[in-house]
Amino acid sequence: MSQNEVKALVFDVFGTVVDWRTSIINECLVLGKQKDINIDWSQFVDNWRAGYRPAMDTIRNDSADWRILDELHMEILLGLLKSYSISLNSDEIIHLNKCWHRLHPWDDSVNGITRLNSRFITATLSNGNVSLLTNMAKFAKLPWTCILSAEIFKHYKPDDEVYKGAANILDLKPNQVMMVAAHKSDLLAAKSNGLVTAYINRPYEFGNYSVEVEDVEKDIDIWASDLESLADQLECN
Amino acid sequence: MSQNEVKALVFDVFGTVVDWRTSIINECLVLGKQKDINIDWSQFVDNWRAGYRPAMDTIRNDSADWRILDELHMEILLGLLKSYSISLNSDEIIHLNKCWHRLHPWDDSVNGITRLNSRFITATLSNGNVSLLTNMAKFAKLPWTCILSAEIFKHYKPDDEVYKGAANILDLKPNQVMMVAAHKSDLLAAKSNGLVTAYINRPYEFGNYSVEVEDVEKDIDIWASDLESLADQLECN
Repeated sequence: MSQNEVKALVFDVFGTVVDWRTSIINECLVLGKQKDINIDWSQFVDNWRAGYRPAMDTIRNDSADWRILDELHMEILLGLLKSYSISLNSDEIIHLNKCWHRLHPWDDSVNGITRLNSRFITATLSNGNVSLLTNMAKFAKLPWTCILSAEIFKHYKPDDEVYKGAANILDLKPNQVMMVAAHKSDLLAAKSNGLVTAYINRPYEFGNYSVEVEDVEKDIDIWASDLESLADQLECN
Repeated sequence: MSQNEVKALVFDVFGTVVDWRTSIINECLVLGKQKDINIDWSQFVDNWRAGYRPAMDTIRNDSADWRILDELHMEILLGLLKSYSISLNSDEIIHLNKCWHRLHPWDDSVNGITRLNSRFITATLSNGNVSLLTNMAKFAKLPWTCILSAEIFKHYKPDDEVYKGAANILDLKPNQVMMVAAHKSDLLAAKSNGLVTAYINRPYEFGNYSVEVEDVEKDIDIWASDLESLADQLECN
């Protein structure tokens, strides 16, 4: 473990820092009540999220030109609205699509990042586009030092270009950057590019408590129950 | 004036937010004392800064591939060290070149930006590279919402691509973005790309009080004596 060299922490955001699922379900429930639409909104939101990986993979495989996550979210949303026979006007659709900019943090996130700022540069390293992450920083009061995004590197995680790009744009060596994420695949890709890794346990990301904890301990440098715990382990006051 | 639409303020940094000249002269004076080098360090620093515009222009004119400002600063510095017959080892040269990452804010900057954050997204929009601006944000405690840089757009100000790119990456229309700068040329370029403009008066940027105030009032939307005054005019508590 080479965490003594670390100068910057870069964070996965969806699931690691913000509770996207509860946030979006709650927005959809309000919309459903307003518009008298009675469907299983949890399933709707899970379907929306399920479209994310295949949409990104069309770009990761170089079969499609670069498009930001807002556009991918919109494409998936339009398909879902059609399949659920939900009729909204264009302003309502645009507002709904931007619910991904209005995600609430986990209870420990703001204080955890604030404490980590006492010793480190903190940055997003998310597949969300820059405006999504910037609006979310304002909405959720996330005190990032800077916003880094797949959009800057024109590659989606887990492409190597994102992890190498983050170290390069911060003028740091890979082993001076720690990837912080709640997903093993993100950390393994970061590790294969030389970054230090911290796993954050988020058993409620997909709703009910997940009993199936990811088996990551042998692969990563730090295991933390939340961002306050990470700040404790990195000796941040 | 359409400042009621403004959602984001983007800031020139060198001169507008930080006092680059005093900061660097003071670092050079310490170095000179340590190494027993007795030259006119103010002149040295002014020469360093004077090399900045021609170096950028070689890139703006497409005659050279993109290079970040740290590299341009290094090229100019190496020439100056040679012409002054100053001998430093490579670690000392790298450290000296990065004094541009360690610039002190004007007295009103941190509080001004903090107040502006109560109503707006605040972002850098500087020719400095991302790592320079990120390290400076930590060093000077500048609470930006996000870091935008010429490096992201691979164009230096006053190229149109920087101003258009800032609005685009923030998912805003140009008239929802206000350029904040102490330099008329920056503001005129921003205005020609549809941005709203705020001039900050920094008469001490180049040392002694400048009696030659730039005649900008007819060209810009807001004239402010400093960032606290800008916060007052934009009704930020």
